[in-house]
Amino acid sequence: MMLTDKNLAVLSKLEWRYATQKFDTNKKIDSATWDTVEKALILTPSSWGLQTWKFVVVTDAKIKEELVAASYGQKQVKDCSHVVVICRPDKLTAEYINEFVDFTASVHGLSAKEFAREHEMMLRMQKGMNEAQTAEWMSMQCYIALGNLMTAASMLDIDTCPMEGFSKKDYDRILGLDKSGCHSVVVCAMGYRSAEDQKANLPKVRFPKEKVIVRI
Amino acid sequence: MMLTDKNLAVLSKLEWRYATQKFDTNKKIDSATWDTVEKALILTPSSWGLQTWKFVVVTDAKIKEELVAASYGQKQVKDCSHVVVICRPDKLTAEYINEFVDFTASVHGLSAKEFAREHEMMLRMQKGMNEAQTAEWMSMQCYIALGNLMTAASMLDIDTCPMEGFSKKDYDRILGLDKSGCHSVVVCAMGYRSAEDQKANLPKVRFPKEKVIVRI
Repeated sequence: MMLTDKNLAVLSKLEWRYATQKFDTNKKIDSATWDTVEKALILTPSSWGLQTWKFVVVTDAKIKEELVAASYGQKQVKDCSHVVVICRPDKLTAEYINEFVDFTASVHGLSAKEFAREHEMMLRMQKGMNEAQTAEWMSMQCYIALGNLMTAASMLDIDTCPMEGFSKKDYDRILGLDKSGCHSVVVCAMGYRSAEDQKANLPKVRFPKEKVIVRI
Repeated sequence: MMLTDKNLAVLSKLEWRYATQKFDTNKKIDSATWDTVEKALILTPSSWGLQTWKFVVVTDAKIKEELVAASYGQKQVKDCSHVVVICRPDKLTAEYINEFVDFTASVHGLSAKEFAREHEMMLRMQKGMNEAQTAEWMSMQCYIALGNLMTAASMLDIDTCPMEGFSKKDYDRILGLDKSGCHSVVVCAMGYRSAEDQKANLPKVRFPKEKVIVRI
C-alpha cells in the first residue's frame, strides 16, 4: 500500500513521540511556539463545545520543584519546560450553561433563542447527572484535551510526558486550585528530551493490529 | 509574535476541524489513508502503555443504518465513510497485565524480570480499583484515543464528528460487543464534510484565553 507524504509525515511524528522520562533542563519552549500550544489547547473539541476545563501552565521554578514531591518523586515536572495541569471545575451549573449559550449566540451574531433546543438538552443533561457523574464526565473532557495536546505537541516537535501518578490533593493545594473551585485531573510535562534519556531509543510497545482493531 | 510555518500549519488544521454535522455520502476515505488512521489509533499513548481498548471500525452499510436509531437519529454514522467505536474491556485482569509485561519484555528483548517493579505497581493499581473505578479509568484512556484520533485526522484533512449521544446498550448489542467482553465508550464518525453543511462556515466558539488558561 502506497502511503502519501502527508500520511507518512503524521505517522513519523506519532512514532517519534514517547513518554519522555528525562527532559533537557536547558531547552525551553520559545514563546511563539508556546502560544501555539495554548491555542491548540483552547481549540480542543468538547461535548456540546462546553469547554468545562482550565489549563494551568506552570513555569515557576519553585512551584515546579514543589510538584516533584506531589508527583511521587517524578522529576519530569521540574526538568521540563512547561507543566500543563488539566483541571475540571468543581461542578457544572445551569448558570455556566446559560452563559455558554449567550456567548455562542453573540459569537454567531444570533439571539440566544435560536439555541433554545440545544440549550434545553444541555440543561437536561446537567440536571440528570449527580455530582460524581458530573465529575467523571468533565474529567473525560479533560482527557480529550490531553490526547489533542500530546498529538499537537508531537507535530510541533515538542516532547511530552503524560502523568496520572500524582497526588491530586497536593496539586490542588500547591496550585491554589481548591480556592478557585477547580480540581486537577491529569498532568502533561512538556519540553525537549535529554540526549541521555535511554527510553527515547526503545522500540514502541504496541499490541498487533488484530488485537485492537475490529472491522465490521 | 512571529509564528513559524510549522506553528501556523498545525493551527490551521485545528481551526479547520469542526464537529461535522453533514458528511458527503459519496466521499470515502481511501484505504492507504485509512491504514494511516488505524496506525495513529494504535499509537495512542496510554497509562503504563496498557492499551486497554478496542477500536471497532464500522463500514458495513446495513450496520451503519442500524446505528442511526441507536444514535437518537443522528445521521452522521450512516453518511460518513468510517465509524470508529472506541471501546473498553469489561474488566482489567491481572492476566492482562501479566500478558502485557511479557509482551513488553519480548519487544525489548529482555526478561520480564527486568520489569518487576513496574509490574508490581501495575498489579497494585489493578487490585486497588473497584469495578466502577476500573471502568472509569479505562474510559478515560479511551478519551485520550478520541483526542488523538480527531487531531491526527485533522492533520490528514479528514473530518470527524465525536459523539457521546448514543445508546451504549444498543451499540453493544448491534456490534456484538456484549459477547466479546467489551463496552462502547465514545464514537467518532469520520469522512469528508458535505458542501451543504452550513455548520462548516460558522465561527468557532471558544472562551477567551484569560478564562481557560492560568499561568503560574
